[in-house]
Amino acid sequence: MKFCSNCAHAVSLRIPDGDNRQRFVCERCGSIHYENPRIVVGTLPVQSGRVLLCKRAIEPRAGYWTLPAGFLECGESVAQGAARETEEEAGIDITLGLLFSMVDVPFVNQVHIFYLAEMNGPRVEPGPETLEARLFDLDALPWDSLAFRTVEMTLRWYLDDLRHARPFVGPHTSVVERPTSGESGAVGASASRP
Amino acid sequence: MKFCSNCAHAVSLRIPDGDNRQRFVCERCGSIHYENPRIVVGTLPVQSGRVLLCKRAIEPRAGYWTLPAGFLECGESVAQGAARETEEEAGIDITLGLLFSMVDVPFVNQVHIFYLAEMNGPRVEPGPETLEARLFDLDALPWDSLAFRTVEMTLRWYLDDLRHARPFVGPHTSVVERPTSGESGAVGASASRP
Repeated sequence: MKFCSNCAHAVSLRIPDGDNRQRFVCERCGSIHYENPRIVVGTLPVQSGRVLLCKRAIEPRAGYWTLPAGFLECGESVAQGAARETEEEAGIDITLGLLFSMVDVPFVNQVHIFYLAEMNGPRVEPGPETLEARLFDLDALPWDSLAFRTVEMTLRWYLDDLRHARPFVGPHTSVVERPTSGESGAVGASASRP
Repeated sequence: MKFCSNCAHAVSLRIPDGDNRQRFVCERCGSIHYENPRIVVGTLPVQSGRVLLCKRAIEPRAGYWTLPAGFLECGESVAQGAARETEEEAGIDITLGLLFSMVDVPFVNQVHIFYLAEMNGPRVEPGPETLEARLFDLDALPWDSLAFRTVEMTLRWYLDDLRHARPFVGPHTSVVERPTSGESGAVGASASRP
C-alpha cells in the first residue's frame, strides 16, 4: 500500500495512537488502513468412498491437484463460501457435512477451512479455474502433485480417521510454517488467489 | 474505497475479466482491490467454575460486557490471536483449550471464533480497551448487558453443554443475521474494531 484509498494522499507506516503495531496511516485524512488475514474455504467431496479433486488451471500451482476452495467473499458465511467454491470449481451437487479442518498459514496471512461434503450425483462440470475434476480412489490419491500443504494435511487426516475409525471430536487443526529453501512453497503467495 | 492504494488513481467498481463479482479496479495500473471478511478471535476464560468477562472501554458497545476478543492480525495463527487478545484485554494467564465456537456475522463481514481457556492464576490486569475485567458466577452472568450476540451465543452454548454434560463433538456454529429495526445491532459495525 502506497496511497490512501480514501483521499489518495501518500500513506506512512507507523504505530497509530492507542495501537501496538504498525499500520498504513494517512496523515492527511487520518484513515488507518488495517490489513488482516483472509479465509480460504473449501470442501473434501466424497462419493462412494472416492474423493473429488480439481486440477488447477490457474496460478499459483497450475496443473496441480487441489480440493475445491477459494477466498471467502463478503456477505457470505463460511459454509456458504465453501459450497459456492465447490460449485464454481468442480460443478458438483453436494450436501455440506462436518467442519473438518482449520489450518493457519500465517506466513501468507491465510486461514484454510475445509468441510466434508457428500456428492449427491454424478454431475462434474469443472469451472474456468479447473482443468479437470475427477474422483480418486483413496489408495490412488496424487500425493506427489498436490497443490497445497493444507490440502495434503486435510486428505491425510481424512484417511487416518477412516483407517482408525476415529469418532469425530472436532476439526483437525494445524499451522503451516514458511517453507525452507529446499521445500516447495505450495501454499501460494500472499497476493495470489486460490 | 475511492482511490487505488498502489498508484492513487480513482478506482471503479466493476466485475474484472474472469471474475463473477464487483471489485474495486484501477483502470490505470490494473490493480484489483479485493475485500474479504475478517476474523475476530477470542476466548471464554474459566476459573473455578466462573467465567471472565471484560467491560468494554471503547466503541462499539462501550460499557457492555464481552469475552476478550479482537481482530486476528497478519502473521499469527488463530490460536495465537485468541491468546494475544485475551492477554491484551484482560491481562490474565491462560492455557488455551478447545476451539469452541465459530459464528459467521456476514452482514458486517466477520467470522467470530472462540476458544475455551483455563485461567492459571488470579492475575487480572485490564488493558486500555477494557474498563473492568472480572469473574462471574454462571448463574449471575450479565445477560442484559452483553456487547455482542456472538458472545451471548457462545456463553449460552457453554452453559448448555455443562448442564447436559454433553461430550464435545466439535465447535458450535451459527450465523448471526442482520438485526431488524427493533433489535440491538450488537455485533459492531463493519468499520469498527472489537
